[in-house]
Amino acid sequence: MGTLLYSAAMSLDGFIAGPGGDMSWLAAYTGPNPAADALAAETGALLVGRRTFCGDDPYRGTEGEGKAFGCGWDGPQVVLTRQPLPAAAGVTYCASLAEGVALAQAAAGEKTVNVLGASVGLACVGAGLLDEVEVMVMPVLLGDGVRLFSRSGPPVGLELSWQRGTTLRYRVVP
Amino acid sequence: MGTLLYSAAMSLDGFIAGPGGDMSWLAAYTGPNPAADALAAETGALLVGRRTFCGDDPYRGTEGEGKAFGCGWDGPQVVLTRQPLPAAAGVTYCASLAEGVALAQAAAGEKTVNVLGASVGLACVGAGLLDEVEVMVMPVLLGDGVRLFSRSGPPVGLELSWQRGTTLRYRVVP
Repeated sequence: MGTLLYSAAMSLDGFIAGPGGDMSWLAAYTGPNPAADALAAETGALLVGRRTFCGDDPYRGTEGEGKAFGCGWDGPQVVLTRQPLPAAAGVTYCASLAEGVALAQAAAGEKTVNVLGASVGLACVGAGLLDEVEVMVMPVLLGDGVRLFSRSGPPVGLELSWQRGTTLRYRVVP
Repeated sequence: MGTLLYSAAMSLDGFIAGPGGDMSWLAAYTGPNPAADALAAETGALLVGRRTFCGDDPYRGTEGEGKAFGCGWDGPQVVLTRQPLPAAAGVTYCASLAEGVALAQAAAGEKTVNVLGASVGLACVGAGLLDEVEVMVMPVLLGDGVRLFSRSGPPVGLELSWQRGTTLRYRVVP
C-alpha cells in the first residue's frame, strides 16, 4: 500500500491559501517546477477536500485551469463531501474519511495517495492515518488565510525525509 | 550599515511560539545548531520586542537560560517597550520603532541587527525597514500559537538568498 501524503504549496509563514481560500497568490509561481513534477509522477490517486475540489484555481486563465498540478497529472480522485456534487469522470464522492482513504489507496495501488486540502490533511493526522507531509515553501509572506495545519492539540512530531531546494518532505512520527 | 534581519525558529506550519507565547516546544531542538551559531556570529545587536524579552525561555533549566541563542551570543540589545522595565547591562529601552532600529544599527556597526519577536518583525515590514527574513524550519506541526507573520494586507514578496538545510534566508522584495 502506498504512502498517504498531505502536500501543499505554502507561503513561508504557513498559509496554503489566502483569506476565503483565495489561490491567486500562487499564480506567480506556476512556471516549471521539478518538485511538483516529481510529486505528480509518484501520485496514484488524490484524496481531496470539498473546499479544495470546488475552490479557487491557481491556474485560472492558463491551459492548466481545472486540472490537478496545472495539467501535470491525470488520474482517480476521491472527494470527501457530505453534499451531493455533479458526477465527474474519474471522481468518486465519499462522506467518510476512513472509506475515502481506503478507496484512494485501492485506486493508487503502490503509488502515493496525495491529500489536498487543509481540513482533510488535519483529519488524516487526527485519525493517525497520515504517513508524510510535503511542503513547497514559496517565497512570500501572506499574513492571513488558510493555514497548513490549524488545531488546538499536542504538537505533531516530524522527521525530515528529504529536501529538494525549499520543498521539504517529512515523515509523521507516530 | 548592516542588515536588518527578522529571524525565528518556526514550526513547519508557521508558528514561532505556542499559545500564549509558550516556547517549551523548542526545548527538543536546543542541541548543536550550526545555523544558529552562524546567525549568532553575524549578529551585532538585537532588536527585541517586549513580549519576547520578558517571555518564555526555550533554554529554561539549561545553562543557556536567560541568554540569547542559549548562551551563544552576548552583545547590545534594544528592547522596544512603552512600559518601564528594570535597568539591565547592555540593554537599551526604547518606545519608538524608528529610533530603536537606528540605535540597534548604530550599536551593530557593519554587523546584522537581529529582530526577535513577531510584532517587531511585523512592524519592521510595515515600515518598509526590513531587509531580510531567516527561518529555521523545525520538524514539528504546532497547529496554534504565535505566527511568524500575521496581518491583513497585501502579500510580501521574498527572494531566496540562500539555504542551509531547512534554514531558509530571504531578501524582502521592496
